[in-house]
Amino acid sequence: MGDLKLIKNFKVTDGFFGRYEKLVKDVVLPYQERALNDQIEGAEKSHCIENFRMAAQKLKTGECDGAFYGMVFQDSDVAKWLEGAAYSLAQYPDADLEARCDEIISLIGEAQQEDGYLNTYFTVKEPDKRWTNLQEAHELYCAGHMIEAAVAYAECTGKTRLLEIMCGMSDHIYKHFVEEGAEGYPGHPEIELALMRLYHSTGVERYKELALHFINVRGVNSDYYNEEQAKRGWTVWGANPVDKEYTQCNVPVREQKKAVGHAVRAVYLYTGMADAAVETGDKELANACETLWNNITQHRMYVTGAIGSAYEGEAFTKDDHLPNDTAYAETCAAIGLIFFSNKMLYLARHGKYADVMERALYNCVLAGMQLDGTKFFYVNPLEVLPGISGEAKTHKHTLPVRPKWFTCACCPPNVARLLASVAEYAWHMVEGTLFSNLFIAGTLDVTDSLGGKVSLRTSYPYDNKMEYHFEPRREKMSMTLAVRMPAWSRETKIAINGKASDCEIRDGYAYLQGDFGADDVVTVEFDMAVRRVYTSSRVSANTGRAAVQRGPLIYCAEGVDNENDILSLSLKKDGRVTVSEYLPEKLCGIQELYAEGYRETVSEELYNYETPEAEPCRITLVPYYTWANRGLNQMRVWMPERD
Amino acid sequence: MGDLKLIKNFKVTDGFFGRYEKLVKDVVLPYQERALNDQIEGAEKSHCIENFRMAAQKLKTGECDGAFYGMVFQDSDVAKWLEGAAYSLAQYPDADLEARCDEIISLIGEAQQEDGYLNTYFTVKEPDKRWTNLQEAHELYCAGHMIEAAVAYAECTGKTRLLEIMCGMSDHIYKHFVEEGAEGYPGHPEIELALMRLYHSTGVERYKELALHFINVRGVNSDYYNEEQAKRGWTVWGANPVDKEYTQCNVPVREQKKAVGHAVRAVYLYTGMADAAVETGDKELANACETLWNNITQHRMYVTGAIGSAYEGEAFTKDDHLPNDTAYAETCAAIGLIFFSNKMLYLARHGKYADVMERALYNCVLAGMQLDGTKFFYVNPLEVLPGISGEAKTHKHTLPVRPKWFTCACCPPNVARLLASVAEYAWHMVEGTLFSNLFIAGTLDVTDSLGGKVSLRTSYPYDNKMEYHFEPRREKMSMTLAVRMPAWSRETKIAINGKASDCEIRDGYAYLQGDFGADDVVTVEFDMAVRRVYTSSRVSANTGRAAVQRGPLIYCAEGVDNENDILSLSLKKDGRVTVSEYLPEKLCGIQELYAEGYRETVSEELYNYETPEAEPCRITLVPYYTWANRGLNQMRVWMPERD
Repeated sequence: MGDLKLIKNFKVTDGFFGRYEKLVKDVVLPYQERALNDQIEGAEKSHCIENFRMAAQKLKTGECDGAFYGMVFQDSDVAKWLEGAAYSLAQYPDADLEARCDEIISLIGEAQQEDGYLNTYFTVKEPDKRWTNLQEAHELYCAGHMIEAAVAYAECTGKTRLLEIMCGMSDHIYKHFVEEGAEGYPGHPEIELALMRLYHSTGVERYKELALHFINVRGVNSDYYNEEQAKRGWTVWGANPVDKEYTQCNVPVREQKKAVGHAVRAVYLYTGMADAAVETGDKELANACETLWNNITQHRMYVTGAIGSAYEGEAFTKDDHLPNDTAYAETCAAIGLIFFSNKMLYLARHGKYADVMERALYNCVLAGMQLDGTKFFYVNPLEVLPGISGEAKTHKHTLPVRPKWFTCACCPPNVARLLASVAEYAWHMVEGTLFSNLFIAGTLDVTDSLGGKVSLRTSYPYDNKMEYHFEPRREKMSMTLAVRMPAWSRETKIAINGKASDCEIRDGYAYLQGDFGADDVVTVEFDMAVRRVYTSSRVSANTGRAAVQRGPLIYCAEGVDNENDILSLSLKKDGRVTVSEYLPEKLCGIQELYAEGYRETVSEELYNYETPEAEPCRITLVPYYTWANRGLNQMRVWMPERD
Repeated sequence: MGDLKLIKNFKVTDGFFGRYEKLVKDVVLPYQERALNDQIEGAEKSHCIENFRMAAQKLKTGECDGAFYGMVFQDSDVAKWLEGAAYSLAQYPDADLEARCDEIISLIGEAQQEDGYLNTYFTVKEPDKRWTNLQEAHELYCAGHMIEAAVAYAECTGKTRLLEIMCGMSDHIYKHFVEEGAEGYPGHPEIELALMRLYHSTGVERYKELALHFINVRGVNSDYYNEEQAKRGWTVWGANPVDKEYTQCNVPVREQKKAVGHAVRAVYLYTGMADAAVETGDKELANACETLWNNITQHRMYVTGAIGSAYEGEAFTKDDHLPNDTAYAETCAAIGLIFFSNKMLYLARHGKYADVMERALYNCVLAGMQLDGTKFFYVNPLEVLPGISGEAKTHKHTLPVRPKWFTCACCPPNVARLLASVAEYAWHMVEGTLFSNLFIAGTLDVTDSLGGKVSLRTSYPYDNKMEYHFEPRREKMSMTLAVRMPAWSRETKIAINGKASDCEIRDGYAYLQGDFGADDVVTVEFDMAVRRVYTSSRVSANTGRAAVQRGPLIYCAEGVDNENDILSLSLKKDGRVTVSEYLPEKLCGIQELYAEGYRETVSEELYNYETPEAEPCRITLVPYYTWANRGLNQMRVWMPERD
């Protein structure tokens, strides 16, 4: 999304993310490859590779055996998987995986029509209906994801076959929408951000122009989908175009003040808008992005970085409506919020954007995947009660354990591509300044720009100490290192070679300017004291409640650690919370927290006139990202607090 | 529902319910009559009188001008209105109203087919589809309501025309389902309880038999609706018969352990079951009723006596799932819970059943109507936040202010008939014992059975003192007065002629046996100290929270009394709550409560690491039944509690 060179040039040595990177390589990508090829027993069928095979066959022979299967956007699962594989290959060269990717890319090429058009749903199933149903049919969305895969694959492997394919498709889209003046804009935004990436990678102005076109026309004719529906005479799933907020076309993008509608669509759109604003210097567009980002993070974001309060429309609802147990909180939406926040960093250098990236990554996104990499959450609630969650009609979406795959499998490959490209969000290079946004141990080669390498040594997020080392190619690296000062750290100590530094701290970053040599060490020590989190009393669900955070990690109580009943627990106000040793065997390595609290006697009677009896107790808390890894189980983030 | 003689023989002098009785007579019945005749500007169209007119015309001439309009069960609105009018006429003779009722009844007679069949939807719109869609078409439901109206009108006015009409319809139903052996049972239970009433009123065994038939066949073939759907080839609204819990036909009624599905259907069914169990002595049926009543009141009932946790299916969800802001809590369902609890009193004499009647009546049911009698709530949530309630996709049903009428207008006439018949629930006569269940001032004529009158003098619910006086026709009334001891009263003082009585207290009643003369006074003083209510910690939504109750009234905080922000408020644990004078001008006469509490500073930031500042403050609370009478406004029942 940002500077892909960072991915190629960063060697992760991190204990925490290193495990994820290896997991992506060894487990997630192979597992998902099997899923896409329908080789996982008991998992939802994907059929998406098969769809490409059929499209290729049809283009070659005029016919194909079998029928298209899956969602209208099934192609995008292949795209996201390829993108993840590309990032992984940049870290871990793997000739075998690369060969398999090349084979799929070759298949994709065969599924491309002569005029550049690529989409298996339309090629196999609805050849006469191309571009007639932008509202529902996700053609531009699928194109966007494949463009992202193409850019990633080219940057990471140097191979440009997929890029050529997708330049062909992009040219086709340009011709249709710009040259031939076809009306409309994508029902599911995605292509805007993808075209910006294509532009950054290729330098071809046409792609930026096309991205801007889709951004600029959106919502100008806010009746477009109604008109399209009246004309087209067919439907994918009977979506109602009357709900204009759902697709963020209620007003032109520069006039949008609230994050509304389908949360993934929203943040994908805003990402494209922010990138376009950076590129064009369009102040109005930049202001809209800032307004929307503020609206999300001040009124519509869970403490885990999750967004989307309602199952209905997988959507944002209203300001300050953040129910915990019925949250939609889709993994993809939190990933999209990371994309958006990352782009905001280019618009306005402020640590708060990276704070939100960290919040979403270490909490909601990581929780989206089983620790072993083979199961996934689509929905990431902040409270789960077996017997209700996943069972009540109001809670069918809040599954208490991760399934193997989904009919709509957008989230699993999205997690894979994000985890494999985490370096992109960790670092940020701007004119001689290296921004350290996420604290992931490893070595970044910035020889090109700064004449050497910078390494970060840390055991974050279970350690508060960051050590930056330098490997200048010649003597010194003259540069500024800008280290994010996370909002959760009350007091951060910064030292150069053991001597406290009074560097400039501005807008959430500590700016360390200097000529750094091989013996120099910049040390940053965060205050990782356990902190209570309180929600503004504007949010009804969390009044009287607190959450517990340490470093970037939001903690939760699970039944399995707490006598299988967490609803009777309250945190003691100002009570002590102790931090366990690092437990390498538990949940792939965590530090638990033990909070002073109370356990209420559970009354048989539903309503009582006496204060329930409560005994002091110790509440065990584990990081939210590890929940639901030990079977069916209660879970709660926000707990009542009492004296 | 119970002993209709109580309605005729009770003269309400009560300040509180007397106001409601007069309101029903002067405002509610005339208002609703106009609504049924489509004479209220800006209200949803009803058309239900017009439907009867068209049916009559069609039967007379073979044709009718215009089309049926409204829900398939639109007839039932007329029935419920007539039933309410009957009860009101018993209290307040009104020749004009009675003449208008007679006219409507005459019209109903003209709309009845020769074979006794009565239903305007099928007569006007679908003459060939009678009895083919029991799942959706509500024929038996509409018949049930009209039977209730007929029984009420006969008992209260002595006029039997409607009773004859409905005996004709009941005979028709008996012929079809019993004699001719047609399969099936009502999609919306109601006729079971109605036929039991018809049996009680007429003594005709056939009607009891028919009630038992519908109870006994229910759920035995639990696939009935699926089979019916496959056969019938038409639908009213495409309801899915696969959800068997929705219509309580998942298992035979005697095997039902949990209150499931559509809440109104459920409690109407259970009411019929309980009445049948009383009548037949069927232990298995009685046990099922007790199990279901316990399940509701221990796991699925709001503190206001409301039931139905979800909009989806207007239904019960799962045990201990009681969300406050998205509650369905339909007025009709609380009314049905009163019916059910009242019947349970006949099965097992225990004050707890009357406690629940009182809870539902004084809180949820009364809240269902604007204090001026002209607007109504269908849904009665326990927390309302303008900006979210009635607006977010998840909260479309929780309107923050009462509408004038509804497309599906089941609730308004249901409130009217309940309020007009409240005497039936207040008193209970069993073999020489007079049970005083609800404390409504007035005089009950029990000359027939006990040789005199019993009066209750009280200003309940704003007064804790009950005085029972006696007017024996000759010297003394030899009887037992059983006064309910409400669970909320910690210590109740009972005295006869000022002398403390050590009467037997058993199963929630104080039994006062004696020969009472004109000078005797039984005095009962409840402990009306303000009480905190706590929910069992099984219920997630209310952990760490308390509600406030005084006497039978649950209180709530409204924004209008509390600086338009109630989310920042917490009750002080063990803090003082003072009770205002009686305020005759406020909300038609209430006592407010002033609770010691805290007001938190509302933080601009969504999440904060510091405990929010809080200042001591006084929280004003008003009775829940009065909420939303002062415009758009926040409301909350369950508030956080802190030291």
